Amino acid sequence: MLIVAVDVMSGDREPRERVAGVLRVLRLDGDLRALLVGKPAEIAPGLERLPDALRERVEIVPASQVIAMGEAPRTAVRRGRDSSMRVALNLVKEGRAAACVSAGNTGALTAISHFVLKTVESVERAAIMSAVPSSRGHTHMLDLGANTGATPLQLYQFACMGSIVARDLYGIEAPRVALLNIGEEDIKGHEVVQAAHALLGDGGVRYVGFVEGDGIFSGEVDVVVTDGFTGNVALKTMEGLARLIARRTRREFQSSVRGAIAGWIARPVLRRLAEGLDPRQYNGACMVGLRGVVVKSHGHADATAFARAVELAAHAARGELTSHIAQAFGA
Amino acid sequence: MLIVAVDVMSGDREPRERVAGVLRVLRLDGDLRALLVGKPAEIAPGLERLPDALRERVEIVPASQVIAMGEAPRTAVRRGRDSSMRVALNLVKEGRAAACVSAGNTGALTAISHFVLKTVESVERAAIMSAVPSSRGHTHMLDLGANTGATPLQLYQFACMGSIVARDLYGIEAPRVALLNIGEEDIKGHEVVQAAHALLGDGGVRYVGFVEGDGIFSGEVDVVVTDGFTGNVALKTMEGLARLIARRTRREFQSSVRGAIAGWIARPVLRRLAEGLDPRQYNGACMVGLRGVVVKSHGHADATAFARAVELAAHAARGELTSHIAQAFGA
Repeated sequence: MLIVAVDVMSGDREPRERVAGVLRVLRLDGDLRALLVGKPAEIAPGLERLPDALRERVEIVPASQVIAMGEAPRTAVRRGRDSSMRVALNLVKEGRAAACVSAGNTGALTAISHFVLKTVESVERAAIMSAVPSSRGHTHMLDLGANTGATPLQLYQFACMGSIVARDLYGIEAPRVALLNIGEEDIKGHEVVQAAHALLGDGGVRYVGFVEGDGIFSGEVDVVVTDGFTGNVALKTMEGLARLIARRTRREFQSSVRGAIAGWIARPVLRRLAEGLDPRQYNGACMVGLRGVVVKSHGHADATAFARAVELAAHAARGELTSHIAQAFGA
Repeated sequence: MLIVAVDVMSGDREPRERVAGVLRVLRLDGDLRALLVGKPAEIAPGLERLPDALRERVEIVPASQVIAMGEAPRTAVRRGRDSSMRVALNLVKEGRAAACVSAGNTGALTAISHFVLKTVESVERAAIMSAVPSSRGHTHMLDLGANTGATPLQLYQFACMGSIVARDLYGIEAPRVALLNIGEEDIKGHEVVQAAHALLGDGGVRYVGFVEGDGIFSGEVDVVVTDGFTGNVALKTMEGLARLIARRTRREFQSSVRGAIAGWIARPVLRRLAEGLDPRQYNGACMVGLRGVVVKSHGHADATAFARAVELAAHAARGELTSHIAQAFGA
């Protein structure tokens, strides 16, 4: 039985939304237990009237504090000792849970994860990694914002870790790894990407060179590596544009009788399109490089989206992500 | 009569594609003349059989070299003295043309523009600025890749210049300017955005703080400022995602009889949607901060897209972009 610790308090929505997401996963995955971390009074109502077989696989672990979405990472580490986030990470550290999920403040989650779990030996910094849609399925990207920058060595390490995750969690045999840059030619980009390019050229991963932003979606690479600033901007840009297009599509189909008729006939088609681009389907990003599995959920996640993050945590723990990375880094 | 110098040789497509784009603009804008810079033998065939009134407004200015798309900026400056790009920029410098357009290598265009025209006094670096779609029209973004990074002072200067362009070329009275970051809270981001945030807080522009990537499309800001690396990645990411969505939409509408019928009825709706997101409609980016108007076209631009870039150059020259920026910077 796999045990996942879930910080159900942190995030933009009510805790019950995340509790509902966890329960959804538990119903589908009979081999999973969840430790719901937070204020019992806010969690317990969501667990009423559950069938015994399900109720037995859920346990509330009390934590009195909640780290605010805007709280500075340093303060979060210093003052949030009994926060749901910290307690959930402690459960992983103590071996009581195999993975942890939180929809909280990214900066705080990164700082507390590094502080509580530490990185795998010789890994300098953990990175946030997630799948984004591409023309042939998915591309895996990191770092999506665990850090505000990256050194060449860190980019190299992200590439190695990303390659392991793509192989071991997503079954891509020899993942093609690329560095995000502002041109594909060897001479392009700033000093940091240039130095990382040189490091990656020396081997260790199947490095295919630079890609530009549009290369993320081409299906020609499996793992795209970048620093956390650029990666986070790219990810949020995708989310914003996808939402803009969805809104415009709705508006155009509603703007005329002809559009409305076409929209009615095209409903299944439009629904499939919307689902394929629904950011909720992509919710959940692994924080790779830590001594333990940590999954970051989008702060806005509803039950559907949060369930995805919980599934990802279980998948990563079962795939023994942490020990595979540790082996690769010779720890 | 406004005169625009056009480097018709540089770009991924044949010169005749860009010549056709120029002619399209000249037909609509009777007050415009074009100097087509490049190899006469490759340009002349595109000018045959033109009505006299149009032919009189076109002149070929010979240039024997073409800067390759992959050429390093430094080599381009040193060796491309008779290149179409350099000659076109010289025409602006000598006052023979009011603006210049090129679909060539961004790095070379940036380097040669800085070398030939120089920046406006006290402007450290020029930036590439363009409009992208938003939920309420457009957002203006810079730097989209003239530089591989930016100092806090440069970001501050980009904000000032972007504000002037949004006001004087796009009629936005008091443009709301934001800095692109990986969080909206004051404490977020790396040292450079933090320092730029402090500079912008001291005034000069209507600064509204940080936005994340999705904020580009919200319609709540008019000008988004970032360094050239991040900006270029964000722009290319948008292009790639828009193309992916367009491809998927076509595929879904073709995948079933129901979809095909709906697609047929929805044709005008789908066409409007596609046009609103067509990157060709957004082609042309001003290089702001130089002593002269320089417009960068996408390398892949076809006649339709290239025409947009030529129109933008004429619009920027008529709006006296350069002198407005020079005034603002006290030059």
